[in-house]
Amino acid sequence: MISDRMKDMIGSSSAIRAMFEEGKRLASIYGKENVYDFSLGNPSVPAPSKVKDAFIDVINNTNDITLHGYMNNSGFESVRESIAKSINDKFGTAFSCKNIVMTVGAAGGLNVILRAILNPDDEVVLIAPFFGEYLNYVANSFGKSVIVPPNPPSFQPDLSALEKAIGKKTKAVIINTPNNPTGVVYSEDTLKKLAKILEKKSKENNQAIYLISDEPYRELAYDSVEVPYVTKYYANTVVGYSYSKSLSLPGERIGYLVIPDEAEDFENLVSACNVATRILGFVNAPSLQQLAIEKCLGETSDISVYDKNRELLYTKLTEYGFECTKPQGAFYLFVKCPIDEKEFVEKAKELRLLLVGGKSFACEGYVRLAYCVSYKTIQDSLAQFKKLAEETVCKNK
Amino acid sequence: MISDRMKDMIGSSSAIRAMFEEGKRLASIYGKENVYDFSLGNPSVPAPSKVKDAFIDVINNTNDITLHGYMNNSGFESVRESIAKSINDKFGTAFSCKNIVMTVGAAGGLNVILRAILNPDDEVVLIAPFFGEYLNYVANSFGKSVIVPPNPPSFQPDLSALEKAIGKKTKAVIINTPNNPTGVVYSEDTLKKLAKILEKKSKENNQAIYLISDEPYRELAYDSVEVPYVTKYYANTVVGYSYSKSLSLPGERIGYLVIPDEAEDFENLVSACNVATRILGFVNAPSLQQLAIEKCLGETSDISVYDKNRELLYTKLTEYGFECTKPQGAFYLFVKCPIDEKEFVEKAKELRLLLVGGKSFACEGYVRLAYCVSYKTIQDSLAQFKKLAEETVCKNK
Repeated sequence: MISDRMKDMIGSSSAIRAMFEEGKRLASIYGKENVYDFSLGNPSVPAPSKVKDAFIDVINNTNDITLHGYMNNSGFESVRESIAKSINDKFGTAFSCKNIVMTVGAAGGLNVILRAILNPDDEVVLIAPFFGEYLNYVANSFGKSVIVPPNPPSFQPDLSALEKAIGKKTKAVIINTPNNPTGVVYSEDTLKKLAKILEKKSKENNQAIYLISDEPYRELAYDSVEVPYVTKYYANTVVGYSYSKSLSLPGERIGYLVIPDEAEDFENLVSACNVATRILGFVNAPSLQQLAIEKCLGETSDISVYDKNRELLYTKLTEYGFECTKPQGAFYLFVKCPIDEKEFVEKAKELRLLLVGGKSFACEGYVRLAYCVSYKTIQDSLAQFKKLAEETVCKNK
Repeated sequence: MISDRMKDMIGSSSAIRAMFEEGKRLASIYGKENVYDFSLGNPSVPAPSKVKDAFIDVINNTNDITLHGYMNNSGFESVRESIAKSINDKFGTAFSCKNIVMTVGAAGGLNVILRAILNPDDEVVLIAPFFGEYLNYVANSFGKSVIVPPNPPSFQPDLSALEKAIGKKTKAVIINTPNNPTGVVYSEDTLKKLAKILEKKSKENNQAIYLISDEPYRELAYDSVEVPYVTKYYANTVVGYSYSKSLSLPGERIGYLVIPDEAEDFENLVSACNVATRILGFVNAPSLQQLAIEKCLGETSDISVYDKNRELLYTKLTEYGFECTKPQGAFYLFVKCPIDEKEFVEKAKELRLLLVGGKSFACEGYVRLAYCVSYKTIQDSLAQFKKLAEETVCKNK
């Protein structure tokens, strides 16, 4: 009685639940501390203390009707103005409240911008590996996904393959930097070349191709790497942002879209995002969260914790013989499977290591490790990873 | 460059904005207190004081990672269990956490259940007058809306027209009681007869027809009228609820779906709602709001304020000669236009009365007055309504 599409989706969703249940089963046998769960991208670092103060301040000092009431579907104007100013201070841009649409997390934002621009069967180009939900978001708005194959080991996009993937019906390209699942940060050089391609193709198509930059991991960057602000390189850029990782608030569903003045059809695009927020059932980003994050702009969770995890895990895994590009952002390692992906995930599970196969990210033959766990979990897991290497890397050589 | 559908939608959205702008313009000329805005369903009664305490309690006494982190897409199990228990206490039902899916308001919930059940071109029956967004929600999930004509003056659904509207492709019927825009509460008799029709038609179609009961106004009922709990009358009922009106939290986006054990394909239906919550980009209902409302179950805003408004406005408008069914719920009056709807809305605007035309609710020739305003606004507006009557009702006689 549920829809046919849903039947398939419940199937794949069951696989994730099965992993979760298996984790619980293993925990009940070996103890929770002896199961090493690297499967979830749930921040392990608490929100900065300022977040708590901000919530309490907002609750205590805002008129009840304003605090909990409806506002414009795009969000509170004051919040949007503060966010614009904070982006300007950081990146030398010139945004104002009219360039910002508050969203129910980055997931909400992506759905909103896609609904705003896509006609049925319009194409959206995705660059593998990518967050698997993009496929659903594109389909939600009647669009079609076109996938650019992965480009290991750098995982910078293969720009000639990308150029080939762009056709007459291409309405948008989604990028995600720092990237989930690779942790790779797209370089300025990549963005400049990408912009050139999109400009050329837009001209050929006589229709703008929007570059949607999904940036929930923007603040999670290491080694002082620069994460270039994409609107500076390409006029038709729309940025999707979320506080889920930067402030460790994934359950609170708060983020925003940036739509620059230079974007084609700017005024209509902003209006369409406003309408899309309403008709998709989001209505508005949660009011309390909007007002609270306004007081925490510029704050981030303690990123050094992830950095320390990254160093230890990367150093040890490569020492054991695993192949992996050193990530400069996010909190993921994307490791090449020395054997068949499915078998590798199974073998890892037998060693109480829970990993996600690259297939979920349109990149078979890899696994993603989410290292947003405690340092102790990583330390304790190393002996198991070593065994995993002995059973797979060495056997394969 | 935005999608074609969006172009049309921005048009109608502009009409609402135009009304809003006109209100601001009038306010700048005549003073804000001399413009009587009955156009918005934004609760005017503040949230109960317990809500503030609950938010602060939750923020102060919940572990940060739990408070702000991801949980199951369906929401916190403890919150869902508490809600189930509270419904059971009130209505003698037997729900548990597995029957509850937390949603981003009722709008989120409706989109989730529709996505769970609709195949492309499946039909959803709507009973006029109805909240206009239903059309968008059905279209979001690739479905088609079939409209049952309005049945004035009682505005109980015309059940024989409803029966005729149900075809082979009908997958669901949406009802909304207490109703927006009429304020009418569907009687037990209506629900029993409706259930019989749906049972018969489900049998004929050899496929269950779900009854989706959208109940954001459940707690806003006057004259001690009973608002029957719909799951008791029809097995394949799914209830959508929201705290937007009952706790005056519309900006906070918090509500839930109830899916009874007896619903056909129950386990898959719950799984599909879980998946739909994720893929539509809601991910989960905001975490803080979930935990806070758990502490406020059974609380409501001070409904007597709306009741007092209702009595005054209804008494006076009918005294002036307007025709209107006395509403027993929600915070709306649905008044028959003595002249052409568009002209009537315009004339009202000239008198600084902002009303919404019935066309937005698939019921031309009426206007909706949202009386969730201050008592003083109503008192002060009466002279203007009297003039409006003199210019329209009397002229028409």
